Amino acid sequence: MASIVLGIADSARLFGEGAQHSTEPLMTIVDAHERVVSPFDYAVTRGDGIFEATTVWHGTPISLQAHLRRLAHSAALMELPKPNVAEFSRAVDEMIAHYDDPEPGPILRILVSRGLDAETGIGRASDGLPHVWMFLDAQGALHDTDPITLTALNRGYSSDITSRAPWLLNGAKTLSYAVNMAMHRECDRRHVDDAVTTTEDGFVLECPNSSIVAQYGNRLVTPNPNIGILHGTSQRELFSFNQQEGGSWEYATLPFARLLEADHVFMTHGGWVIPVASIDDTKFVVNPDFVQRANDAIHSGRTQEEALQIQPDEGMF
Amino acid sequence: MASIVLGIADSARLFGEGAQHSTEPLMTIVDAHERVVSPFDYAVTRGDGIFEATTVWHGTPISLQAHLRRLAHSAALMELPKPNVAEFSRAVDEMIAHYDDPEPGPILRILVSRGLDAETGIGRASDGLPHVWMFLDAQGALHDTDPITLTALNRGYSSDITSRAPWLLNGAKTLSYAVNMAMHRECDRRHVDDAVTTTEDGFVLECPNSSIVAQYGNRLVTPNPNIGILHGTSQRELFSFNQQEGGSWEYATLPFARLLEADHVFMTHGGWVIPVASIDDTKFVVNPDFVQRANDAIHSGRTQEEALQIQPDEGMF
Repeated sequence: MASIVLGIADSARLFGEGAQHSTEPLMTIVDAHERVVSPFDYAVTRGDGIFEATTVWHGTPISLQAHLRRLAHSAALMELPKPNVAEFSRAVDEMIAHYDDPEPGPILRILVSRGLDAETGIGRASDGLPHVWMFLDAQGALHDTDPITLTALNRGYSSDITSRAPWLLNGAKTLSYAVNMAMHRECDRRHVDDAVTTTEDGFVLECPNSSIVAQYGNRLVTPNPNIGILHGTSQRELFSFNQQEGGSWEYATLPFARLLEADHVFMTHGGWVIPVASIDDTKFVVNPDFVQRANDAIHSGRTQEEALQIQPDEGMF
Repeated sequence: MASIVLGIADSARLFGEGAQHSTEPLMTIVDAHERVVSPFDYAVTRGDGIFEATTVWHGTPISLQAHLRRLAHSAALMELPKPNVAEFSRAVDEMIAHYDDPEPGPILRILVSRGLDAETGIGRASDGLPHVWMFLDAQGALHDTDPITLTALNRGYSSDITSRAPWLLNGAKTLSYAVNMAMHRECDRRHVDDAVTTTEDGFVLECPNSSIVAQYGNRLVTPNPNIGILHGTSQRELFSFNQQEGGSWEYATLPFARLLEADHVFMTHGGWVIPVASIDDTKFVVNPDFVQRANDAIHSGRTQEEALQIQPDEGMF
């Protein structure tokens, strides 16, 4: 039984344009306990890489194309080689073929590092290629849809920082998540489940590893990614669901005070919509029926194609 | 010949109080090409760990006690177990005993991760201990003291953010250095060697992986670490040298405009003082004799004890 599948990519074939015309496997599957990363790897020395994560639901990776397009967007912001989305998709399929645990919704994680650290002797002697590892995991934290409590945490940036300081990498999903982890420890200290981050000038950003969506009547609103946040994959699936149900959606520069006035609030990530019960002292009504139907729609694949078309006016990816 | 020495720590013995009363080696030395890190390690999945780096000069790790105290300070900010500084020192000695390259000044790097990622199945089944790797490297980038050119880069934070948002981990030397690396790519784009970062409100912070020191007459000034930066180890050695030479030193909230008025500017890190020739369009006179004498003093160990006593008024570590 492989309930945790670990794979090392033939990474030369996962970057660049053009089909490789090879039927050789892209992923080498190894025992999940194997230590396959060099301590001289940029992932270890500098957190210098990018990642994506989603749920594989009954064998289908949710929003995979959106995740891989976002991976390519992160790679561009990080000046990494361009991921070949078709080859990454094929690699994910290979991973899934090795999974045979009864759990219907393991987590798929795709990790990309810049390769071996060129400031080290081991890195200098290397081929300089990025490294890619993937795992499918049924034994780690899996999603549930119980209502969660949030606290607001200041991200320390103003809402216009991204255009002024692109080297801050806002909008790239990097392996440098120490701050995101520290935010979760602050949540523990405040006895809440998760956080929503805000700008110095009072606008809503995102959650440390998810997106935030506010509902007003039958309209869904999420912060515009151009504020320097990730473009949510499950958020787009939820927008697609709401559109199919006759509702509407909007990307906005969302004041935090306005978020607190929402009829309902949702956290979205990894193929799941999770209802928010409170943000600090503000309580929200939970609508479990809407949440259930949204998750069922997303997991059925019904929203996926449309979700890929949903984006802010100025375009994204 | 081991010009690159890689060691894996018996990490249970490197944390917590009290002597372990064991003569067993703390470090297991392995071939430098061995892949000793799990892809489920927090260092890989989240850049969730801390590090230190310094030069080992003719067998003596420069400012080691200051580095290990700073490691302990980073661990506290990150809510990691408390490093046992005495045991870490002993582990470093073991590393150095395995080095026998003619290069007199290899780099020592100490990497600490939170351990295996508790959100993964592999992490859940683990002992939850931090992991420690060290390497000594004579084949990677080594320091030189040629004058360097800098550019100023906005770090996006205001000067009072640290007390308001400690979860941003300003002042901790974490493994999440993707932004620091992006700053160096921006330097390449601007055809300069390195950067000095500034706050939104116009104060000086630090360099992406070093400290900045301004000289006015015989007084040395560096930004106070309470602004949310690392407390420089080589900066303290330089302050100590200047004090021994009859000069003075100061920790200040330093306006960027005031930095540009300095007589001389230095970048300090890893046991070296490096003269700064320019910050963007502002040129500085380089004083190679002072730099040479400062580096000689630091490398001789003459400044080390005194440097440990140098700190801002409010104390640090």
